[in-house]
Amino acid sequence: MIVQLSDYIDGVRLNRRLEAMARIGATEAGGVNRQALTVGDAHAQNLLAGWGRQIGMCATRDPAGNLFLRLQGSDADLPCVLSGSHLDTQPTGGRYDGVYGVLAALEVAEAMVAAGVVPKRSIEVVAWMNEEGSRFAPGMMGSAVYGGARGLQDILAVSDESGVTVAQALTALCPVLENIDIRPLSDAPHRYVEAHIEQGPVLEREGLQIGIVTGIQGKHTFTVQVQGEAAHAGTALLAERRDALLSATAIVQALACAIHDDDDLTRFTIGRFNVTPNAPSVVASRVQFSIDLRHPDTAELQRLAALIVPTCEAHAAPCSVSVTCLSAVDSLQFPAPMRDCIRRAAIGLGLKHRDLLSAAGHDARYLHPLCPSAMIFVPCRGGITHNESEYALPDDLTAGARVLADVLGDLCLNEETS
Amino acid sequence: MIVQLSDYIDGVRLNRRLEAMARIGATEAGGVNRQALTVGDAHAQNLLAGWGRQIGMCATRDPAGNLFLRLQGSDADLPCVLSGSHLDTQPTGGRYDGVYGVLAALEVAEAMVAAGVVPKRSIEVVAWMNEEGSRFAPGMMGSAVYGGARGLQDILAVSDESGVTVAQALTALCPVLENIDIRPLSDAPHRYVEAHIEQGPVLEREGLQIGIVTGIQGKHTFTVQVQGEAAHAGTALLAERRDALLSATAIVQALACAIHDDDDLTRFTIGRFNVTPNAPSVVASRVQFSIDLRHPDTAELQRLAALIVPTCEAHAAPCSVSVTCLSAVDSLQFPAPMRDCIRRAAIGLGLKHRDLLSAAGHDARYLHPLCPSAMIFVPCRGGITHNESEYALPDDLTAGARVLADVLGDLCLNEETS
Repeated sequence: MIVQLSDYIDGVRLNRRLEAMARIGATEAGGVNRQALTVGDAHAQNLLAGWGRQIGMCATRDPAGNLFLRLQGSDADLPCVLSGSHLDTQPTGGRYDGVYGVLAALEVAEAMVAAGVVPKRSIEVVAWMNEEGSRFAPGMMGSAVYGGARGLQDILAVSDESGVTVAQALTALCPVLENIDIRPLSDAPHRYVEAHIEQGPVLEREGLQIGIVTGIQGKHTFTVQVQGEAAHAGTALLAERRDALLSATAIVQALACAIHDDDDLTRFTIGRFNVTPNAPSVVASRVQFSIDLRHPDTAELQRLAALIVPTCEAHAAPCSVSVTCLSAVDSLQFPAPMRDCIRRAAIGLGLKHRDLLSAAGHDARYLHPLCPSAMIFVPCRGGITHNESEYALPDDLTAGARVLADVLGDLCLNEETS
Repeated sequence: MIVQLSDYIDGVRLNRRLEAMARIGATEAGGVNRQALTVGDAHAQNLLAGWGRQIGMCATRDPAGNLFLRLQGSDADLPCVLSGSHLDTQPTGGRYDGVYGVLAALEVAEAMVAAGVVPKRSIEVVAWMNEEGSRFAPGMMGSAVYGGARGLQDILAVSDESGVTVAQALTALCPVLENIDIRPLSDAPHRYVEAHIEQGPVLEREGLQIGIVTGIQGKHTFTVQVQGEAAHAGTALLAERRDALLSATAIVQALACAIHDDDDLTRFTIGRFNVTPNAPSVVASRVQFSIDLRHPDTAELQRLAALIVPTCEAHAAPCSVSVTCLSAVDSLQFPAPMRDCIRRAAIGLGLKHRDLLSAAGHDARYLHPLCPSAMIFVPCRGGITHNESEYALPDDLTAGARVLADVLGDLCLNEETS
């Protein structure tokens, strides 16, 4: 590689842009609430598209709501090199999860323009629709459609808690998204690379700046519905009640017990729990709750997932219970040549690094079956994420963008390694 | 008594009016959702006031949002005889709870007019503000202020889940409430009688039409807040989490166990349970839930209430917990002369009756310290209430109104027994 793109990364601009994005949906506690397909999400997309246009990038959206900024290569017919992440956040989310990968990719495009390089392959920066899945469950919707794992009509029909569908939310945002044309769903890109904060404590603890992600642990998600019967809190005999809240809490405790492992490799979370009618003096008639279950080992994940239905059924009485599996994805490993490409870049820049598995899910999961894919991690303070106090050091964020620059440079400019 | 008011009760009109009221806030499942200080609640008040005006009753509201219809007596300066209940319902409530007592009292006023009787004491029909407490907790707000148990400013400051205060909700309804003047908070009435569905299975099971309520069982209510820390469902080690949902469900199970009694006299309900941020892939940072605890024996109720804080604290780890007592009311007994008055009326009409304790709370609780008070119960099917399938037989409802007529006739017309 003749040009070292990392030399042209402007860390000050990158961190300033992260701050600007964090103002869209900013919460009082210093975090961000910018859920998928809200007006805030659209404003973030407009801001991104505007920055891209300043360096001649063309912004388009596909029917799944994914946003692309394209820097045209010298051979426009070749599949592009794709890089990015997502702009949506959890309801009490942080300032780096997702948006960092999008802005790091944009910064690489800036570096390419600043270096005066026209790559052979076009480079595209992507912001995937609804990675978080907090408003419309499950997440990674945009990348799942792009990667072919889910059908477009399937995700368009998903509703949020107020009954608004993805299709309706996408239509409602059309007037807000300024001058961003719709394009068809794309063909497979040449390569995909996603930069992200680690969302775990390993890099910080070991004093490293770069994580070469070996793969992503598997994840199964479920919805559990416990059906009881409404009754008066003052009159209904406890022996005759069918109290959905008492059954649901017994099920939660039994699941936590059944799924416990001493090695603490399993991740088991019940994050959403909704009670009907949810009134202080009415016995609950229904409870619906989510289960998020992950384990790095696919066989163990499948064994644990198989415990869920029998455990729910064993503790539901006197109520009834139904369990719906929303998604079941096994663990995956990114290809060695892609990981080697990141390793070479980190070594070339003298940055301390290590291999590590991603415990969190990412859009790269759905790109992996489509084209050789990879992920670069940077440290985040205390491993704290999905939390308003999420924080990453500007210097680490810049280091990650420099590695991404040399990796994308390698993939766009030097056809032999890509 | 020369005039037998019960002869003038029109059961068809009473039941037709119950049906008309049930259309305001009707749910698809055949119940009613007409929560306190909603537009539906105001429409119900307008409908009631209109019926009253047709027979010359004057409608007024007090600053606590209680609605009164007054049939003037021959001695307007004497304290009135008051009768009624409430028009608000639970979110998935029934067609009889509360509204029956209001319409039965109105039917007695109709009977008085039809009989051509002008009572010495004025008679007032009342619809108390927010008996249910589902939107603004705790319930019985209007009667608590009227009875002096709570201050007006205190209840006006209470907010619903969207942050709207009682004061704001009252102001917002002013334009909807047609021609209903505001009057000051009243002085104590002469007597108070409330008719209500039993909300328990006893009368139906024993084939009786009239319950002479001996008293109301005590009730303590609490809010429990469990504070944990938000974290990422895929990355945070279970050993390092402070999962508010896991702690809260452990607390709920421990409370149910600690409060269990083999005689099934205790009523223990957790009807509201709210999780923050309530997203599937975020460990819950906070859970807030309600406790509704009742027991007919005041000493036992106090013993059980004292278990709540230590039980919560023993099971909160690794989260923290705080418990707030919202209300603590002991069991009460209605005065014997008032109960005898109901008994005489039931015997006079040849209706099968028995004494029984009210397991549910009622507005009569707050009238009891103010003036001699009483309650008349009629059966409800299966004891099912606070439920959209709540049902009472028209014939039983008419029987209850006839007893109420003779009781109120006794209290208004015959000064020697009142």
